[in-house]
Amino acid sequence: MRVEVINTGTELLLGNVVNTHIAYLGKTLFPLGLRITRQVTVPDGAAIREALFDAFPRSDILIVTGGLGPTTDDITREITAEMLGLRLLEDAWVTEAISARLARRNIPYRERMRRQAFVPEGATVLRNDNGTAPGLYVPPKATPAWSTPHLFLLPGPPRELRPMFEDYALPILKEIIGAAAPDRECRIYHVVGMGESTVEEVIGLGLDARGDIEVGYCARPNEVDLRLIAPPAILDEVEPLVREVLGKHIVSQSGKSIEQVVVEKLIETSQTLSLAESCTGGFLAHRITNVPGASEIFPAGYVTYANEVKERELHVPADLLRLVGAVSEEVARAMAEGVLREAGTDFGIGVTGIAGPGGGTAEKPVGTVFIALAQKGGPTVCERATFPTDRETFKQLATQSALDMLRLRLFA
Amino acid sequence: MRVEVINTGTELLLGNVVNTHIAYLGKTLFPLGLRITRQVTVPDGAAIREALFDAFPRSDILIVTGGLGPTTDDITREITAEMLGLRLLEDAWVTEAISARLARRNIPYRERMRRQAFVPEGATVLRNDNGTAPGLYVPPKATPAWSTPHLFLLPGPPRELRPMFEDYALPILKEIIGAAAPDRECRIYHVVGMGESTVEEVIGLGLDARGDIEVGYCARPNEVDLRLIAPPAILDEVEPLVREVLGKHIVSQSGKSIEQVVVEKLIETSQTLSLAESCTGGFLAHRITNVPGASEIFPAGYVTYANEVKERELHVPADLLRLVGAVSEEVARAMAEGVLREAGTDFGIGVTGIAGPGGGTAEKPVGTVFIALAQKGGPTVCERATFPTDRETFKQLATQSALDMLRLRLFA
Repeated sequence: MRVEVINTGTELLLGNVVNTHIAYLGKTLFPLGLRITRQVTVPDGAAIREALFDAFPRSDILIVTGGLGPTTDDITREITAEMLGLRLLEDAWVTEAISARLARRNIPYRERMRRQAFVPEGATVLRNDNGTAPGLYVPPKATPAWSTPHLFLLPGPPRELRPMFEDYALPILKEIIGAAAPDRECRIYHVVGMGESTVEEVIGLGLDARGDIEVGYCARPNEVDLRLIAPPAILDEVEPLVREVLGKHIVSQSGKSIEQVVVEKLIETSQTLSLAESCTGGFLAHRITNVPGASEIFPAGYVTYANEVKERELHVPADLLRLVGAVSEEVARAMAEGVLREAGTDFGIGVTGIAGPGGGTAEKPVGTVFIALAQKGGPTVCERATFPTDRETFKQLATQSALDMLRLRLFA
Repeated sequence: MRVEVINTGTELLLGNVVNTHIAYLGKTLFPLGLRITRQVTVPDGAAIREALFDAFPRSDILIVTGGLGPTTDDITREITAEMLGLRLLEDAWVTEAISARLARRNIPYRERMRRQAFVPEGATVLRNDNGTAPGLYVPPKATPAWSTPHLFLLPGPPRELRPMFEDYALPILKEIIGAAAPDRECRIYHVVGMGESTVEEVIGLGLDARGDIEVGYCARPNEVDLRLIAPPAILDEVEPLVREVLGKHIVSQSGKSIEQVVVEKLIETSQTLSLAESCTGGFLAHRITNVPGASEIFPAGYVTYANEVKERELHVPADLLRLVGAVSEEVARAMAEGVLREAGTDFGIGVTGIAGPGGGTAEKPVGTVFIALAQKGGPTVCERATFPTDRETFKQLATQSALDMLRLRLFA
């Protein structure tokens, strides 16, 4: 089935907001055997008409996001009804749900809110448990001019769209595609520590030559995804080859992030971790604590930008800081060992470096980072790397390396 | 001028990667007076042909991202040359640049890399200072079938695309559009603490009625952007009205984030900040340290998940933790005051709550958070909020509230 997505929103094209809908919908549709074949973003207003006109004949399932809210630039509902020749009727249940929601939150009911309760005749309301604008499912309709696809209208805010999609749109989609299990599966190998073309060279040609596997690659900072799409039996058959070639560089399969893998392993083995961050500024703690259950294994993290805080909290010797400087292997090691002792954990990580844009020297240019891993009763190791990039990518790359050092130790 | 963007990449549609190109290009083109009128994502491979075919007659400037790399699913360059009837010629300078780059990084040169050095005749190479695949600018070409737009082919990885676009594509774009200054300006008011429809009600109708201002809204967690597009003189004229109505809820204008505003104000007034985070797990420190120069004002942050760490590092009384529990107003206040004293800063923030999915009770459900702000020589205040949502949105909402409490104090 051909699935298309139309995102409406001037803010998406002006660049004030990143479009996260595509990735979310792609990931959520894939297990049903559905793949987005085309995605379009258009500004608010009349452009939605042309986009619908283009997509109607080309798609079997069409998902439209945005333009359902109470403000005057939200006109997706009205244009759809007009193009399909459907009257808009007020749904008393929706009106009631909107005013009840507003009352619970002490927000005054405003007349403009009421527009959101109008539903094209024959459409099914998709409840919004996290906002006011309901979604809509409009079944296919044959008109003299065209026959329309299964049409899903969803609200723009991700925290409204996502639960609505999972709770109310997916069941309808499952009915549409029937009970048949998808015959192809997608396996993604997260690979760290190998470049994209190396990954392809070591594995791609052999798999490509088979012809029965769709092979794709995607490179991100310090990480490559190798994506194989084929019937499950074929994926099982090549799995040993993939694992033999990529070996310890495979962080996970089927989408688990490196922080998930690390936290879950710590939980499983009842070991704990503490962090001493300078240049990564709390981002490593943030990544760890994004994983549910992190509180079981992560008692304490320190963001020690100032030298005196490194001394006071992590017991890094003042002499050492003076002698070799805060950005050094010795200080990274002292931070990792200091936080391990202070927090009484099984592992301690210390990160110190120069995120930039200021602070670089000839010997230690912007992007220099030292990452140390200490283990109770085990050796402390330290790696030096240089990531000369912007501040946020630097944090991404440095924390990725730190997580990988810990991962390799945990799975050694 | 009509500007369209085509993003190629199966990974964008499968959901493994979020498409950040649209937002970046939209933001970067706007100051030139250019707006993206349509954006399309297609999978790797043959779909690029249909997308180019659709976009050629409709656009004056066409930007294509992805598909320029060394792997077999990268075919943007080849299909473009074929559709425009241009021969691909090897550019010796590019071949040399690629092998020199690889040599510097100790990556072996592989024959497949060479494809990236082929350039359609008449095209201009856009240097890639952060990767191997160069970009290309192909000037308009009239064929019997169509006349093509100004065509920019850019690599997929954001850290290669962005500097290339700014350093090598923008100068060409500026020549294309001529020296004329854009006659319209975009002003964005970041608003915190007001709902979207309240923002529209208080200000939208008055401005909409004028007819000479394009008004738009965009809601994100705990934040609304009010976007006005008009000639600068008109924007200046309505500025006092906007400021009078939205008042202290305006965090910034023209895109500055709340963390930028707060850090810059602290730097300007030579005041310092320390953080004691529990449920936000380092995300508040991460947001603060994303701002260049944060090291001047942020000596120390603590991520104190465990109670004993709250006691030991922040001097939260053990009795208090036992009596009222870690998630309480009293503990939030003790954390803020404790970190302020421990770090010797002018401000201290303490955050404690239940991010979920586990840990909620009837009295303190998942999503409950207490945020306290302490000031040297000033009062400590505490706010309670409930954000019953997923873990990452919870962190976003809680840190947004914490930053806004500090902002209101700094600008009081």
